[in-house]
Amino acid sequence: MNHKTSTTHRVFDRETPIALTIDDGDTVDFECPSIFDWGPNASVDDLMSMDFVHPHILTGPVAIRGAEPGDALAIDILDVRVTTPQGVTAFMPGFGLLADDFDEAHVHVVRYVDKMAEIKEGVRVPLEPFLGIMGVAPAEFGEHSTIPPRPIGGNLDNRHFRPGTRLILPVEVSGALFSCGDGHAAQGDGEVCGTAVETSVAATLRFHVLSGQAPSSPRAVVSEPLERTPDRGHLVTTGIGDDLHEGARQAVRQMIGLLVAERGLTRQEAYVLCSVAADLKISEIVNEPNWIVSAYLPLTVFTEGS
Amino acid sequence: MNHKTSTTHRVFDRETPIALTIDDGDTVDFECPSIFDWGPNASVDDLMSMDFVHPHILTGPVAIRGAEPGDALAIDILDVRVTTPQGVTAFMPGFGLLADDFDEAHVHVVRYVDKMAEIKEGVRVPLEPFLGIMGVAPAEFGEHSTIPPRPIGGNLDNRHFRPGTRLILPVEVSGALFSCGDGHAAQGDGEVCGTAVETSVAATLRFHVLSGQAPSSPRAVVSEPLERTPDRGHLVTTGIGDDLHEGARQAVRQMIGLLVAERGLTRQEAYVLCSVAADLKISEIVNEPNWIVSAYLPLTVFTEGS
Repeated sequence: MNHKTSTTHRVFDRETPIALTIDDGDTVDFECPSIFDWGPNASVDDLMSMDFVHPHILTGPVAIRGAEPGDALAIDILDVRVTTPQGVTAFMPGFGLLADDFDEAHVHVVRYVDKMAEIKEGVRVPLEPFLGIMGVAPAEFGEHSTIPPRPIGGNLDNRHFRPGTRLILPVEVSGALFSCGDGHAAQGDGEVCGTAVETSVAATLRFHVLSGQAPSSPRAVVSEPLERTPDRGHLVTTGIGDDLHEGARQAVRQMIGLLVAERGLTRQEAYVLCSVAADLKISEIVNEPNWIVSAYLPLTVFTEGS
Repeated sequence: MNHKTSTTHRVFDRETPIALTIDDGDTVDFECPSIFDWGPNASVDDLMSMDFVHPHILTGPVAIRGAEPGDALAIDILDVRVTTPQGVTAFMPGFGLLADDFDEAHVHVVRYVDKMAEIKEGVRVPLEPFLGIMGVAPAEFGEHSTIPPRPIGGNLDNRHFRPGTRLILPVEVSGALFSCGDGHAAQGDGEVCGTAVETSVAATLRFHVLSGQAPSSPRAVVSEPLERTPDRGHLVTTGIGDDLHEGARQAVRQMIGLLVAERGLTRQEAYVLCSVAADLKISEIVNEPNWIVSAYLPLTVFTEGS
């Protein structure tokens, strides 16, 4: 059976009133507004007046009949589509991987053109919308911030959880109480500046209860290719040292340096582009004492001839 | 001009006798024997009797006329091919991402069949050979272990640095003094058990000096697709928490658990498979206080029907 919901809330809480109750195997269309839906003239004023304690809008919760603690909830992602003509990528003081390097607030409006998110003229990222947040209610009573991801899911921000994915979450309360939101039109693995191309989306998800199969943390089967198409190669930078977090910073700083020196981007544009299109990989984590984090930027973001 | 070298040495040291001197733009064929080249009956005895202080064989060094400190050395990877009919993946006490979980020594012989590395019947990884080590001599006098990667490169273990890649390293001494080795027939991003499919290889590389363009750490342009083909989707597990290293451990432990429970692999086979085929990605590094490391195992490793 197919259902729809546009009921919203702002925290994970097992006592949030249920928006919709469905059966195992049912499908739900979610309307997911973005808190960043500030229109084509979004500005730093919009950013500075947002609610930083509740920076996400969740749609749901949806109760699935028969789901009980110890079960797994399988979420088949059937479709995710942007519902606005533009999104926003933003960063602000004290937040993001390079908070030490960028102490200003910044809002970058990203228009959608021909199924691409346009960062600036000549720089476009394929539109690959997904839900940054998919999660069920934690067993622990009370309000739980949407910011940190948890074993029950939540703010996973995994760009590969696109249509064709089955996400599997552990159920902690009767009915599971699934909510989703935080639409992203494009993002790199890492989401380094702290935001993706933030956007309102609509999503169609199907739910199944897997009896007694709760994983200890989210897992998934992703059926679509992981890389952006067309594939025209990647720029790669590396951070080498005994701390993965610092390695990630080094790799992204190097990439920003390259983009400024060789592609004529401003530092802010380069940071935004890394957040929405560069992927952080752990190249090796065993060559004591130096691990390597590498940043991969797909060359497809530069339109032909640029 | 084309050259060949099979001269080997065991440490990075600017005073290692030069094996070959070439001009800017020349090409060199490197014969790179693996220290793990123990034949089809390799055993734990071979592993326990190897030289753990010098665990790599380097081929070179090659001096490039005109390369000076401050320059960059661009290495165009033209070809890398395995030169033995099998390789070895091994782990040992105290080494590898999950050293706390695996306290035994283990040697796994991997045969090459139809351009695949066969982990066991029904489990095959595409042969994608590359050089685990590519580096130039550090400026600092003395012997430098080949184990940790450094700004001058070395043990980068980046599985994407395959033919079609231009790797760019900073030159620290006159002539650059390039060496390579540590052939890997297949590896996942992370190389989690501490070894890849270790193998002897031959490689053809072309060198160019980029005057005054030394990067602060290795960078590259990779032209080939990053994912293994055919792409049949991925299993994904996640590690969530405030430490990326521990997150990586969690993600790999989950993947090993899945492979044992659902695919009938032994724990050791599963750890080996993760090391040679599972890729570690940093999904998000900004959702305070919980970062996510995800492990991606390509379903193409399971032959059709398994």
